[in-house]
Amino acid sequence: MSSTNEDDPPSPPTAVAPVELVPRFVGRAETEDDVASRRRWVEARTGARLTHVGAMSTPIADLSGNIENPIGAAQVPIGIAGPLRVEGEHARGIFYVPLATTEGALVRSYERGMYVLTRAGGVTVRLDRDQNRVSPTFLFADVAAAAEFASWVEANFTEIAARAEATTRHGRLLRIECHPLGAHVLVDFVYSTGDASGMNMMVNATEAAAKWMVASAGALGFDIFSGAEGEKRAAPRLFAGGKGKRANAGALVPAWLLRGALRTSASELERFSARVAAGHATAGTVGTQGQLANGLAAMFIACGQDVANIVNAAAGITRFVARGDDLYVSVTLPSLTVGTVGGGTGSGTARECLDLLGCAGAGKAKKLAEIVAATLLAGELSMASAIVTGELPAAHEALGRNRPDTPAPR
Amino acid sequence: MSSTNEDDPPSPPTAVAPVELVPRFVGRAETEDDVASRRRWVEARTGARLTHVGAMSTPIADLSGNIENPIGAAQVPIGIAGPLRVEGEHARGIFYVPLATTEGALVRSYERGMYVLTRAGGVTVRLDRDQNRVSPTFLFADVAAAAEFASWVEANFTEIAARAEATTRHGRLLRIECHPLGAHVLVDFVYSTGDASGMNMMVNATEAAAKWMVASAGALGFDIFSGAEGEKRAAPRLFAGGKGKRANAGALVPAWLLRGALRTSASELERFSARVAAGHATAGTVGTQGQLANGLAAMFIACGQDVANIVNAAAGITRFVARGDDLYVSVTLPSLTVGTVGGGTGSGTARECLDLLGCAGAGKAKKLAEIVAATLLAGELSMASAIVTGELPAAHEALGRNRPDTPAPR
Amino acid sequence: MSSTNEDDPPSPPTAVAPVELVPRFVGRAETEDDVASRRRWVEARTGARLTHVGAMSTPIADLSGNIENPIGAAQVPIGIAGPLRVEGEHARGIFYVPLATTEGALVRSYERGMYVLTRAGGVTVRLDRDQNRVSPTFLFADVAAAAEFASWVEANFTEIAARAEATTRHGRLLRIECHPLGAHVLVDFVYSTGDASGMNMMVNATEAAAKWMVASAGALGFDIFSGAEGEKRAAPRLFAGGKGKRANAGALVPAWLLRGALRTSASELERFSARVAAGHATAGTVGTQGQLANGLAAMFIACGQDVANIVNAAAGITRFVARGDDLYVSVTLPSLTVGTVGGGTGSGTARECLDLLGCAGAGKAKKLAEIVAATLLAGELSMASAIVTGELPAAHEALGRNRPDTPAPR
Amino acid sequence: MSSTNEDDPPSPPTAVAPVELVPRFVGRAETEDDVASRRRWVEARTGARLTHVGAMSTPIADLSGNIENPIGAAQVPIGIAGPLRVEGEHARGIFYVPLATTEGALVRSYERGMYVLTRAGGVTVRLDRDQNRVSPTFLFADVAAAAEFASWVEANFTEIAARAEATTRHGRLLRIECHPLGAHVLVDFVYSTGDASGMNMMVNATEAAAKWMVASAGALGFDIFSGAEGEKRAAPRLFAGGKGKRANAGALVPAWLLRGALRTSASELERFSARVAAGHATAGTVGTQGQLANGLAAMFIACGQDVANIVNAAAGITRFVARGDDLYVSVTLPSLTVGTVGGGTGSGTARECLDLLGCAGAGKAKKLAEIVAATLLAGELSMASAIVTGELPAAHEALGRNRPDTPAPR
Repeated sequence: MSSTNEDDPPSPPTAVAPVELVPRFVGRAETEDDVASRRRWVEARTGARLTHVGAMSTPIADLSGNIENPIGAAQVPIGIAGPLRVEGEHARGIFYVPLATTEGALVRSYERGMYVLTRAGGVTVRLDRDQNRVSPTFLFADVAAAAEFASWVEANFTEIAARAEATTRHGRLLRIECHPLGAHVLVDFVYSTGDASGMNMMVNATEAAAKWMVASAGALGFDIFSGAEGEKRAAPRLFAGGKGKRANAGALVPAWLLRGALRTSASELERFSARVAAGHATAGTVGTQGQLANGLAAMFIACGQDVANIVNAAAGITRFVARGDDLYVSVTLPSLTVGTVGGGTGSGTARECLDLLGCAGAGKAKKLAEIVAATLLAGELSMASAIVTGELPAAHEALGRNRPDTPAPR
Repeated sequence: MSSTNEDDPPSPPTAVAPVELVPRFVGRAETEDDVASRRRWVEARTGARLTHVGAMSTPIADLSGNIENPIGAAQVPIGIAGPLRVEGEHARGIFYVPLATTEGALVRSYERGMYVLTRAGGVTVRLDRDQNRVSPTFLFADVAAAAEFASWVEANFTEIAARAEATTRHGRLLRIECHPLGAHVLVDFVYSTGDASGMNMMVNATEAAAKWMVASAGALGFDIFSGAEGEKRAAPRLFAGGKGKRANAGALVPAWLLRGALRTSASELERFSARVAAGHATAGTVGTQGQLANGLAAMFIACGQDVANIVNAAAGITRFVARGDDLYVSVTLPSLTVGTVGGGTGSGTARECLDLLGCAGAGKAKKLAEIVAATLLAGELSMASAIVTGELPAAHEALGRNRPDTPAPR
Repeated sequence: MSSTNEDDPPSPPTAVAPVELVPRFVGRAETEDDVASRRRWVEARTGARLTHVGAMSTPIADLSGNIENPIGAAQVPIGIAGPLRVEGEHARGIFYVPLATTEGALVRSYERGMYVLTRAGGVTVRLDRDQNRVSPTFLFADVAAAAEFASWVEANFTEIAARAEATTRHGRLLRIECHPLGAHVLVDFVYSTGDASGMNMMVNATEAAAKWMVASAGALGFDIFSGAEGEKRAAPRLFAGGKGKRANAGALVPAWLLRGALRTSASELERFSARVAAGHATAGTVGTQGQLANGLAAMFIACGQDVANIVNAAAGITRFVARGDDLYVSVTLPSLTVGTVGGGTGSGTARECLDLLGCAGAGKAKKLAEIVAATLLAGELSMASAIVTGELPAAHEALGRNRPDTPAPR
Repeated sequence: MSSTNEDDPPSPPTAVAPVELVPRFVGRAETEDDVASRRRWVEARTGARLTHVGAMSTPIADLSGNIENPIGAAQVPIGIAGPLRVEGEHARGIFYVPLATTEGALVRSYERGMYVLTRAGGVTVRLDRDQNRVSPTFLFADVAAAAEFASWVEANFTEIAARAEATTRHGRLLRIECHPLGAHVLVDFVYSTGDASGMNMMVNATEAAAKWMVASAGALGFDIFSGAEGEKRAAPRLFAGGKGKRANAGALVPAWLLRGALRTSASELERFSARVAAGHATAGTVGTQGQLANGLAAMFIACGQDVANIVNAAAGITRFVARGDDLYVSVTLPSLTVGTVGGGTGSGTARECLDLLGCAGAGKAKKLAEIVAATLLAGELSMASAIVTGELPAAHEALGRNRPDTPAPR
């Protein structure tokens, strides 16, 4: 067991208290014993007992490249919600959706919405963009050089794409967009990334291209990230697409279902929706929606997605439009960043949950995106109904006491 | 085993395909057998094998009120990062922080930042607001009635607070702010919620007060949520505080550490920071920061927080200010919504991870908030350094191959 | 005539082309001859003939302190729109509103909305906040010192207010709010500024207080503006009030007027309004409205307001809520910055237009704000109706050809 | 003289107070007598004396199509600021810029910045996009039909463009972008509009195309405006371009000028700039800048631009980047909407001011945009310098007392 840290600078000029580094096992892959050893090390230093943390059933060898300094696993309870009928281009049929959460009433609320949408004939989903981007900043001497670079990029797209794509089997550079900003140029590298969320791949491809561009076009340097790409951040720019899949899910809910299952009406929901839009406008909310983050977090944890991406994925617009006494409900998600290969998707509970949805492995990312979008629509419908009928507090209270026989809006 | 759904409306007017509901066990608490039975039911209908999902070690009885339709648990690998010296008002000393993630290089990157900050003397953290809010909308006939209501609320604060606080032992109504919006009034109910994130408590208290207000002031009705509260949504309004703890964490990093451990300089980081702020301005990003969502997601999953709250908690501002050759780094988090009682914090791996930080149970929420803020600062410093030195792609690549002996910026 | 410039630095190190400065007349007030002389100077250097510019009728002596290097005046045509019935707390009765614009159809469009609202019984307006702020940044050594300062400010409000108010007869410091941001603290100084927009007064008062605060609390310095105040900028923060008057204007428009005068219906306008809110959400628009900027610009130019303030004043929320077949229309303006003393309000055409509205001089700013809000509501109603009926392009075309007998939505 | 209103609905069901309409002169162009007659009518009803308003020197016949119900003109004092050296692609040389304002110190402040930038060698300006858009919403039955429409639009671009361009001599449809949103599709029609701001032209062209699209693709209808176009509204979306000219202006200011003329340094301004960016981030400001709205309003009023467009044009990013002891200053304006033909540009003072800049008439819009951008940069530099040196309040005070011999930052 080694406790060195190669970042240790050579000569600390002043005396500092010694710090004890987390043990690393240099030069070999982690074993279960290593994990246990490190867990005991932490227990010894903190007094905590990590019994449940240590009960990880996934072999540590299956997590190679996914975690450093492992000590076990967090367990997040999974509830199953469904049936959910999805009528997408990739997902078609009935699904039961795994939701990992400890927030009481969440699963019941989504389940209620799924039931209603399924009885209404299911949720139609369409994906209209499937792109990802990295947006480096290139530095120049002045505004004129920045403008010349933008022209140069346009003229040299083919060569730039070749440099980028040489680093990857799956990624394809779709286009480049330049945004001069003083003497700098923000450059969107927009890729198709297949079934992976693709951040690492894009970063490698963009770096390769950028180094060549710097050398060829005489830039003073570049930052691989400008902040404009919208990765794991909320921003209106996400609505233009280009950071994940842009999904649009909708369903027509007939009046009898609104009344019978949700105790509300098209008109009530439509007006509530307008009030919420005004509330969001006063806050400057990115998008206008009800509880997208809840369903996203629960599905992303269950399905091994990069959970931090819910910050961008939660940018969405939920709409309730009355059609006579019926209601057309929809949710538009401009930045749905999901993957079915790479990251945490290949092993353990994540793989099992993807299997459960028929979404494990290559060729399944669009299907997963459609199921996520349909699930979120269910949550939006259920929550809005619970608010307009005034049932939300009661439902939470009931579930908080675990009375599974209680209707459960949220 | 029952498969009824009480939301089933009485008379579906048209023939619909029968849908198979997820089994519920009515009238009693879930048992391990129930969970296994439901899991098998799902396996039978989807063909998936849920072995790891079924390996949940937390007794289902400990999750009462936290999950419906349980089938097991998601496992998310935990890496331990540290040492992290925190100099807060509630957290003081060295901490080792559990991060649940499957994103390779994340733990290593945060660890690197923690090491540097600790060598620099630690992270000073201060919390300056600790409030939470629910913001219902009250409906009136016209603009004049809305204005009168706003005056009435001001005059009747004491009575309103009494009605709200009668429903809760821990919550206290600090103030009310009215925002007329046409014939409606958005009303911020701002609470102190102690160690719980407190949403359920606030909803109950606000509902009780609101019902009395409607009756007493002649409102036409109210929605318990207006959308303006910022719960699980990103919005500039969060910077005014009032949705969780507002935390401010900073450290002075000396030049020798910047150079020795991070291979960069104060000047380089300061200028990079300005470039990123410009990039965020073009996107309309809420806040301006590097990777707050990564650390938030990893800590929230490990510590049983409501993970969907990372959408609001990720609104933050990271700053790098050169002081001669040294660098003052800081991160300001206006909406840090954490709790140490209630929700998923009381059992299983969450409880263990809170124990590990000395943050389990009552009286510990502020301490947890300070540790989270210090952790996020470590991630910001590490990531920015990796970008300005151009090491980010290489580091990801190295970790993706699980070579733990590799320096690991990200 | 002098052409020196006191900013001229003593020793330009390199030879630069000589630049010809605009003539100034040092040591005395401008005369009509000075203005004419400078105008001829410009004409000589540019070849332009400035006949109309020279036709300024306002004596230059009346513009003392309002303009430097004067050469005359821009003329912007004023159309008169009305009748507009306003039922405010300060403005009551029928008004005819001067709108300065060269955009064809604008006056006609607002007039149409005014007519309908007046026939509907008038526009009710209420102001619920009337505050202004300057938000300096104070600099400290670290996060801890910043937190201490925030506490110190709270404890020393009385003394701070005394320092600020000693500089002004009309301004009153209502409250201070501290926002720590790393080692800095943004401080909102919130004032009541009476009938002036008050920026100069607030800047002087805040500077006086800030200098004392720096000396007393040991700050490293301060910037008089942090950018957070929202002056002449669009930002969601404006919705919290504190940058001018917050106005709320509404009217119930009966079905017969919607149909007879606007050829539309409550239901059509309500749904259009929801669609626009979704459109704005995709763009990240500050507020959600139709054409507030048009009416604001036209009134601000006519009435001598600081026209740049339309950027903050245009943050607003327009709502159309059906009540059966009638429609409740409203507009909420959180940042209406108007004044009736100071700035350009005291002389020439501005004074005349304020007279026309009964709003000239002290004690009239709230009345002016109410008339502005009612005017904007008229524009919103008219424009939305023109869009839903498809008449907008035709109306513009008709007015563009100056056929005053044509119905004129816009 | 006629006082009828064709919007008068046929049968008001209840008795309402009679309202007196503003006189119109039906069936003929306005004459000076008509204007005077209407002005007297207003004077009689309000008691105001409109002497200066009546002193309009522009013949009313020259304003045909620009104003309805005219009663005269507002006069806004014009100060001349310069010299300003511009090194654009369309504007090259020394300019003296007319600024219409009543805000004391504004002209002096911009003049100071211009002087410094000119001494520094001038302002380089580049325009990288010159596009305009109208963004109608098309309505469909469901999400699937919306998706089909988006595909249909892509396949039928040529025909759509032909329909649109048939209505205009100058406009060209560059591209169309579809954004499905539930059952609706927001469609950006992006045009080149030549030297006009082009809103009327684009509306006509888009309407013609949209009617054909509705008929051909089976839409349920369309709104000509969705709100997403960003016309006269502030929104982050503007940074992507497409609403006017995107301009980028910069200059390198040497240390001796910073010190000698502005009494500050590159380092001070750079750090101030970072503080302001953080302040704006807390407010959610669109862009990050100092006082763009001031210069925009002053130039737009003087030059007959559509003043309401300053709301979108003020979205910008100002940057101060130290280069050793020198400073690279820049301002990026993504939505600069200016025109030199149409609207109010052809007559009176507007035409004269455009002449003064060499920007009157066809082929001059880009030149005007470059001069505006350079002017705004001057204001940004001057204001920032006045803040960091603490001279801002004193300068305002001095100008407020009209002491033209005083240095005048603002």
